[in-house]
Order: sequence, then structure tokens, then C-alpha cells
Amino acid sequence: MIDLVREGSGEAGRAAAFHLAAGGSRVRARLALDAARALALRDRDAIAIAATCELLHNASLVHDDLQDRDVVRRGQDAVWRRYGAAAAICVGDLLLSAAYAALARTGPAAAALIVRMHQRVAAVISGQCHDIALQGRAIASLETYEQVARAKSGPLLILPTELALALAGHEDAIPNAVEAGALFAVGYQIADDLEDVQRDALTEELNIVAVLAAAGETQPQARARDLAVVRFGQAHAAATVLPCGCGALLAAHALRQCLSLSPVLETA
Amino acid sequence: MIDLVREGSGEAGRAAAFHLAAGGSRVRARLALDAARALALRDRDAIAIAATCELLHNASLVHDDLQDRDVVRRGQDAVWRRYGAAAAICVGDLLLSAAYAALARTGPAAAALIVRMHQRVAAVISGQCHDIALQGRAIASLETYEQVARAKSGPLLILPTELALALAGHEDAIPNAVEAGALFAVGYQIADDLEDVQRDALTEELNIVAVLAAAGETQPQARARDLAVVRFGQAHAAATVLPCGCGALLAAHALRQCLSLSPVLETA
Repeated sequence: MIDLVREGSGEAGRAAAFHLAAGGSRVRARLALDAARALALRDRDAIAIAATCELLHNASLVHDDLQDRDVVRRGQDAVWRRYGAAAAICVGDLLLSAAYAALARTGPAAAALIVRMHQRVAAVISGQCHDIALQGRAIASLETYEQVARAKSGPLLILPTELALALAGHEDAIPNAVEAGALFAVGYQIADDLEDVQRDALTEELNIVAVLAAAGETQPQARARDLAVVRFGQAHAAATVLPCGCGALLAAHALRQCLSLSPVLETA
Repeated sequence: MIDLVREGSGEAGRAAAFHLAAGGSRVRARLALDAARALALRDRDAIAIAATCELLHNASLVHDDLQDRDVVRRGQDAVWRRYGAAAAICVGDLLLSAAYAALARTGPAAAALIVRMHQRVAAVISGQCHDIALQGRAIASLETYEQVARAKSGPLLILPTELALALAGHEDAIPNAVEAGALFAVGYQIADDLEDVQRDALTEELNIVAVLAAAGETQPQARARDLAVVRFGQAHAAATVLPCGCGALLAAHALRQCLSLSPVLETA
């Protein structure tokens, strides 16, 4: 990953390396490696798709932080905060381009993977634009909320598994994988919103608690927690039935989220 | 191109289509089609690389306009001006991703082309960052000026010819093509600066006239014009010797620029 963003070197490469060095959980790379192992892909292909997904995720973080003016990422300055807005645009572009370059290492299969990746990137961008357009507006319906959450995070969350399935010739399982990713994304967005209720109320960002309160729920936080548990449960089920156990890690993440949201279950 | 940016639809797709509909000269698409014809490539490949180069160029315009706060593009509002800064980041990302997707249509050859494209994208980003870093600073040397101009515009200008050469198996000619693009880019940047002398002086943007004046030239505009003619002449020579006449259109553009900068030649 570092080699790919150091192409052409310069300030943008250094800033991209600064961003990547902070690490993060590398969930998407792990999902790709796990799915690739389950599907018996070659190591070279496994590493290529893992790097692609991780670079793409980081591209989206750098641009999202700038768009949302979030100042901290992984315990250090967000890229735009340290290097300026113009440089952050360059860094996100470099990471996005590097994500496609990493895919080239799969050889002749790359062409088909590029097409899939662009579909997911376009969906994420569409979700991000929708989210931006809703900021400061009248509170959205639950349906719109779920639609935005699915689009914003689902595609990049499922891409690791999707690329592995495509390389292994399991195209038929991809719609199910996409659904698992979308359900997980909704659960995750709700869990994230539950932590950010007060901040989002101040910044007028879309938040599930405000959506449910506006819909007349008297206990919006409890209802939001229930909904997240349902969505993670559905994601777990959808990921579990993917071929060769290639969704096992995603299923495990979904289960862990269910447990952490259900204190009764956790202590049982 | 429109189909590729309409993937996932939404506001970003509409804004990207708005930007593309204004047209522009489509120089890069024409360079790709001309080089592809000269090298007897398949129509499908010619169209793929032409769309790739045009989408990539437009991605860079959308992000550059935002970075430089340029308000007009092709006689209409720049994307950030009409849709806002956050949406313009999304639109540039969508166009960049679509550029890679267009390359997929070359089939198994796509993997090698992606690698080349990422190298050029990284070089452009490096040049753009360097340019941004120099704004408002002490005036750069002529050497630095040429280095930035080469990096900022050369790679995307030569990519159409480079991708055609790579598809035709003429990798050995690519360094020469890259040099032709870099020389053309320097000539073009100087010609552009000569038109923007007064504006750039106000905004403290890098401009050749200020660079030459600071270096002690008593007639910096005339000297800048001479230098542009030299660089376009060198670009013409380098493009002319490319295999099968695949640099003919670039050479013709260089020659036209030479003529327009040399009133004596024009009327001779």
C-alpha cells in the first residue's frame, strides 16, 4: 500500500503514508484475507484485493473527514487538518487511484473486478451525497435513513467478500453477500449514532434517535438499539450462508455487535 | 462516459453529467482516437482509452477548480460553485473511478494499463500538490517552474498516446512519448500564464512572467514567449518520431501553438 501511494512521491505521498501509518482496525483487509483463504484463492490475489479494499476505505475516510470537517482520525489530526483542504483532496485521489492499481496485481481477472469496484464506489458516492444533502434538512423517514446507511457503508464493507467471490467464480452468491453488507452497514450506522446522539443533535447530522423520536417513538434510543440488533442478526444470517464459509468473519463481527448491544445476552 | 458516471445515480451522477455536458475541446479523447487509429487498434479499445483519458481529465478539472476556487468552467458554473464543495469532491471521485472502469473494456490488457495510469495519476497529484505548496511563497526558480508544469499537465496529456502504444506493444516508444507530453505541457503552461499575468499577480499563483522577472530578465513576457516556442518545437519533434505516426495529432497541436505564439512566422 505504501509503495503504491509513494508513486510519484511528493507531499501527497507523504501525507497519504502519514494517514495509513495510523493503522486503524484494517477490518476490510482482514475480511478480504479471510474470504480469500476460505475460497482457496492464491496469496497474490488475496493480498491484492485486501490492499485494494483498505486503500479504498482510506480514500473515503480522507475525503469524508474533509467534507464533514472531522478534525481527528485514529487519534491523530485528520489529513485536511494537518495538510490543508487542497492537499487532502489530492491525498484521497491518490489513495483511490492506488486502490485500482492494487487490483492490477490480479492479472487478467482485473478487468471484471474493476467493473464491480466502480459500481460499489459509485453507490458509496451516491450515499455520501444523499447524506450531505440531508444535513440541516427536516428529519428524514426511517426508510430514507436506512437507504442512506446502506449506500454509505454497505458497498465498501462487502467489497472484500465480493471481490473474493468473483475471483473464485461464485458470482451467484454475490447478491446475498451484498445484502449481508448492507444489513451490517445499517446496524453499524445505528450503533455509531447511539454514541454520537448529542454531537449530531448540535451539528444537525442525520441520527437514528432523532429520526425515531420524530416518528413518535417514546423510547427512541431503546428502539434504535433493538433495530440494530435485528439488522446485525440478519447480516449474521446472510453472511453465514455464503459459500465455503467465506462470510465467517463478517458473521462473527455481526454477532459480536449483537452481543455488545444486548447487555442481557452478554451476561446470560 | 455518461453511463459510467450514472452508475448508482443520485446527485453526484447528475452533477458529473452536468459537468461533462459542457463538452470542452475533448483534446485527450481525440489524441487517443488518433493514436489508436494510427496503431490499428480495435475500435473497442480505442473508445475505452479515449473515455478513460477524458474522464480522468474531467476528474482533475472538477477537483482543481475547487482547490483553486475557480468559479467558471467552459462558460458555466464550476461544479463546486453550483453544487457545493462537498459534492464537488464526490463528483471528482466518481469521474476518477469511472475513468478506471472505462479501462476495463480493454479486457485482459486492462491490468497493465491500470498500472501505467496510476503512475501518471500519482505524478499529476504530486505536481498539483507542489503547485499548491508554492502559492504565496517566494518566487520559484525557472527549473522549479518547469518541473511543476511538466508534472501537472504532462502525464494526462501523454496518457492517450501512452495507453495506445502500450496496447499496440510499443512499450519501447513510451519514454519518448512521455517526454513529448512533458515538453508540450511546459509550452502550454507558459502560453496560459501569458494570458493570466495580471490575475496571477493578484492571487500570488505561480506565473512564468514573475519567475523570469525575478531572475533579472528585462523583457520577461518576450522571453517567456520564446521559451514556449522552443518547448512546443521540441514537443513537435518528439511526437513526430513516435511509431506509425501515432503522435501526429499531438505534433500538429504543438505546431499550431508555435505559430500562434510567433506572429512573424504566422504572417510570413
